[in-house]
Amino acid sequence: MLKEAIYHINDIPYLFTIGPNEVKIRIRAKRGEVSDCTLLHSDRYKPPGHGVPLKLELMATTELHDYFEGVVYSSSKRIRYQFLLTGVDGSQVWCGEYGVSNTRQSAGYFHCASVSAAFGGQPPSWIRDAVVYQIFPERFANGNAALNPAGVRNWTSSEDPLSDSFYGGDLHGLYEKLPYLHDLGVNVLYLTPVFESPSHHKYDTSDYYSIDPHFGQLEDLRRVVDEAHTLGMKVVLDAVFNHSGDRFFAFQDVINNGADSKYTEWFFIDRFPIVQRPEPSYESFGILSPSMPKLNTGNPEVVRYMLDVAKYWIREIGIDGWRLDVANEIDHSFWRQLREEIKGIDRELLLIGEIMHQSGAWLRGDQFDGVMNYLFRDAMIGFFAEQSITARVFAGQIESVRMQYTDAANSAMFNLIGSHDTERFLTACSRSVWGWQQKQETARLKLAAVFQLTYIGMPMIYYGDEIGMTGGEDPLCRKPMVWDEANQDTTIHAHYKRLIALRREYPALRGGQFRMWFVDEASNGIGFVRQLPDQCVGIVLNNSPDERRLELTAPKGIEAQKIVPLFGSSEWEWSKGQGHLKLPPYSASIVLFS
Amino acid sequence: MLKEAIYHINDIPYLFTIGPNEVKIRIRAKRGEVSDCTLLHSDRYKPPGHGVPLKLELMATTELHDYFEGVVYSSSKRIRYQFLLTGVDGSQVWCGEYGVSNTRQSAGYFHCASVSAAFGGQPPSWIRDAVVYQIFPERFANGNAALNPAGVRNWTSSEDPLSDSFYGGDLHGLYEKLPYLHDLGVNVLYLTPVFESPSHHKYDTSDYYSIDPHFGQLEDLRRVVDEAHTLGMKVVLDAVFNHSGDRFFAFQDVINNGADSKYTEWFFIDRFPIVQRPEPSYESFGILSPSMPKLNTGNPEVVRYMLDVAKYWIREIGIDGWRLDVANEIDHSFWRQLREEIKGIDRELLLIGEIMHQSGAWLRGDQFDGVMNYLFRDAMIGFFAEQSITARVFAGQIESVRMQYTDAANSAMFNLIGSHDTERFLTACSRSVWGWQQKQETARLKLAAVFQLTYIGMPMIYYGDEIGMTGGEDPLCRKPMVWDEANQDTTIHAHYKRLIALRREYPALRGGQFRMWFVDEASNGIGFVRQLPDQCVGIVLNNSPDERRLELTAPKGIEAQKIVPLFGSSEWEWSKGQGHLKLPPYSASIVLFS
Repeated sequence: MLKEAIYHINDIPYLFTIGPNEVKIRIRAKRGEVSDCTLLHSDRYKPPGHGVPLKLELMATTELHDYFEGVVYSSSKRIRYQFLLTGVDGSQVWCGEYGVSNTRQSAGYFHCASVSAAFGGQPPSWIRDAVVYQIFPERFANGNAALNPAGVRNWTSSEDPLSDSFYGGDLHGLYEKLPYLHDLGVNVLYLTPVFESPSHHKYDTSDYYSIDPHFGQLEDLRRVVDEAHTLGMKVVLDAVFNHSGDRFFAFQDVINNGADSKYTEWFFIDRFPIVQRPEPSYESFGILSPSMPKLNTGNPEVVRYMLDVAKYWIREIGIDGWRLDVANEIDHSFWRQLREEIKGIDRELLLIGEIMHQSGAWLRGDQFDGVMNYLFRDAMIGFFAEQSITARVFAGQIESVRMQYTDAANSAMFNLIGSHDTERFLTACSRSVWGWQQKQETARLKLAAVFQLTYIGMPMIYYGDEIGMTGGEDPLCRKPMVWDEANQDTTIHAHYKRLIALRREYPALRGGQFRMWFVDEASNGIGFVRQLPDQCVGIVLNNSPDERRLELTAPKGIEAQKIVPLFGSSEWEWSKGQGHLKLPPYSASIVLFS
Repeated sequence: MLKEAIYHINDIPYLFTIGPNEVKIRIRAKRGEVSDCTLLHSDRYKPPGHGVPLKLELMATTELHDYFEGVVYSSSKRIRYQFLLTGVDGSQVWCGEYGVSNTRQSAGYFHCASVSAAFGGQPPSWIRDAVVYQIFPERFANGNAALNPAGVRNWTSSEDPLSDSFYGGDLHGLYEKLPYLHDLGVNVLYLTPVFESPSHHKYDTSDYYSIDPHFGQLEDLRRVVDEAHTLGMKVVLDAVFNHSGDRFFAFQDVINNGADSKYTEWFFIDRFPIVQRPEPSYESFGILSPSMPKLNTGNPEVVRYMLDVAKYWIREIGIDGWRLDVANEIDHSFWRQLREEIKGIDRELLLIGEIMHQSGAWLRGDQFDGVMNYLFRDAMIGFFAEQSITARVFAGQIESVRMQYTDAANSAMFNLIGSHDTERFLTACSRSVWGWQQKQETARLKLAAVFQLTYIGMPMIYYGDEIGMTGGEDPLCRKPMVWDEANQDTTIHAHYKRLIALRREYPALRGGQFRMWFVDEASNGIGFVRQLPDQCVGIVLNNSPDERRLELTAPKGIEAQKIVPLFGSSEWEWSKGQGHLKLPPYSASIVLFS
């Protein structure tokens, strides 16, 4: 057995609290090498030698590794533990804090000295049922033409949007479309920034305390949030604390007063006087974005100002959480303090970081509940849209993302397949492969939606994806929402609506454990289950342009005498825990095991 | 090359800030497999494909793994990076956030979105020069017999101490011995608790605001600290926030008023009325320690009370830091708040956690500067005292401990070989091996001291080890300090004094980079260097009962035309970067390269 591949630490995400007396413990080994993984645990003050054996379960397999997990209950909340791994070759090794070794003594013991100190943070309880819909207000609906910025384009113009285009979307429009969203079945609305700003995207905030006048007024936001609440929907706003806009009063003060401004320490000024071109004389977001001066979030005055902003909108309007922009360019202490103050108001408030990459350092329970899960999107794009990775690699990537985080963090992800910052999924589906233009884009978007809406975490739908909108990267992914049904793909809409309803109907699809059922590399198909103690749903996907006939046996540990098809047009023959099905090209089947 | 053994995450301890624009990046691979490890990095907003190559250096080798490190300077403080590993077999693999892969594209990129967000915390600047001496006040020196508890034993009694013995040590005695400590050369005094408590060890605090009357009064502590400061020594006290003593006013209130007490939430009470025997009706430290009720450090009232205690002694007496008892049984948020408030007073205050095991979760820069490094002790005991591990395993353990932490944390460790909670090192040296009583205990203690006092971090000497005191586990390791020179081993004292002086004389021994020079498994010897840009010291140890003749070449990357012996009685023949030396049994040589 490969000792070098075994990995465990007594810390998140390999050990985390899941209850007052319970921790989940995870260990990684080389794929396929371990036939049995047993944990021996006892109170840490008992003499060495003690140890209750607990067989860990294989919970995830990535391209290179297997991950085993188990839950330890400890009445004393103080655990000492070791792993004993048995290889498929019959060899046995111990793993403890000294390392991986042939003998128990030389491996040493791991300690979880306090079950509660290993706590990974508790997300709001409502996330389990959440289906998120992302709204880009300037492009969602124009309900009040009187608020239009000068020179707005025609909403249905066929021209591509430019980075300085305006279409006049506003909060009144959003309000009017709430019944549409309610009918679709989504129950969390995530709005990109609505605060005063000169741009269409409003990530360059001029005034953190004002609604942008082209979007409406305070009362318009209140009306949206109140009505959303009445319809059973939560509302999450978008806050930009990494940088302000250059019209923000504090930055204007620095521009006007130079080194004499009392706000010079709110930013990172390289030299005075302030110049914006050709290169800004201060740090800004990204590369050469003079309109977005970076805020000094290490300055207690800035911290206080921004945390007050975050609390103001919660108290004033009753929003249900924040999505935090460019979260990984801000120091952890800022986010810790934000969490403390926000969760101090209400533990049911949601905090989502915009982090497009590995986010473990922010998901230890002391900062965000979850992040915009772009690693999830990367895998979805590769498998369903680009067809650049196959089933085995996709399954490995999806499992790998999950194994980087705690259960709590995984449950609180915004699992997106596109956003205002990316090419739309349907457009990615038409990328050419091997020089051939791909076909059946819509079928592959639908297939991806099946995975997204049956996976753990919060599925997040980017406005318009559900009616077949297309568009490349920003600004093309920000076209005005298509409201004319004649120009909508209503089959996609029906597909999303049905999947959302199914997710609502079957608790296992929301809160059930995720386990791979099979990965069929040759046919590019995968199957997985979502399992609760009293309900188990199976999902099978054929991600190929050919019809597939799959011979299957019941997923491990599940009796599955019978199956009840819930979704999809596939033909099943099943009896006594085995059978087969025929899946049309790029299609899925969802079944209930009984 | 073994992809499965490669490990990196964009987080501590594999990535950490070491300067305003600098991060250190570390990666792990299977031992001996990688011949070249190159990092490609660029600003994270540059298009993919960019990447400045940086050759990483092999910085540590453990039993199973090699660790490579490099430092990336980023003017924008936003880094995107990938690793390219070349195997000794000529194979090449990429490593990024998607995993380890044969192609650059499928590996993906890691992101360090903010150099400062990856910050690992800054320890006090004075730790680099620190040599710590641990004092157990009840057993160090009796300077005022009038304060003796009733029934004290004769200081020089030959009887073994019992767990309820008293000898009358006090602060007056410590004050009188400050010149002794100053002469020895130590410059940080760590005192186990001095606050009012009925026990000899005082880990069951009755009053956090009073000096124990058998130790003296506030003014006695002040006099010790002031005089220590005058002599250039820091003083670190010991705080017990995991539990109080049962005479603590709040617990007394719960005993007396039961469920009506306003302090019931300060503890974890299982049932009323409070009983202490046969089993306490409340949570306590360890197993069945009714005199130490566990404090509820999740209760804001308790947090406030204890943080005020911590700040009081800093402000009132001017102590230089705290050692925090049973630190890993208290939640992280308590320690974060403590750090914030203590470092808010003065960033030069030291915070050391008592964590006897893997401590990474507490050493991320937001809690402790360092810990009582018992993992270091475990390796030292195994190699030098018990002779239960050999050179290769020892070197691997030492390197492994270091690779678990950031540079900052490694520099702020209390590197101990014994304490009031363990068997004394000299006693461990006399353990029998293969049924043979070991000889030359003193030589092996001295050899261990060479390693300890030339290693990175803060060497910590347990009172009396420096004059040859012996004793098994508590209470035997807590014998009264031997002050009669006739009963001291003055050769050990001279050895320690010389090593401390050497450490003071050669900056490389304090702040130099540590690198293994050679590990000679057959002769059970090791060599290592401590290196600054302008000074390099080599240390060679023969941990065997035989004289050894070692053929050596200059350590990698060091010219070493000449050597200047600084310590030890070995005979060197050296010219032009190579030579040999003869080392007597269980002895060491320290040389300056030039």
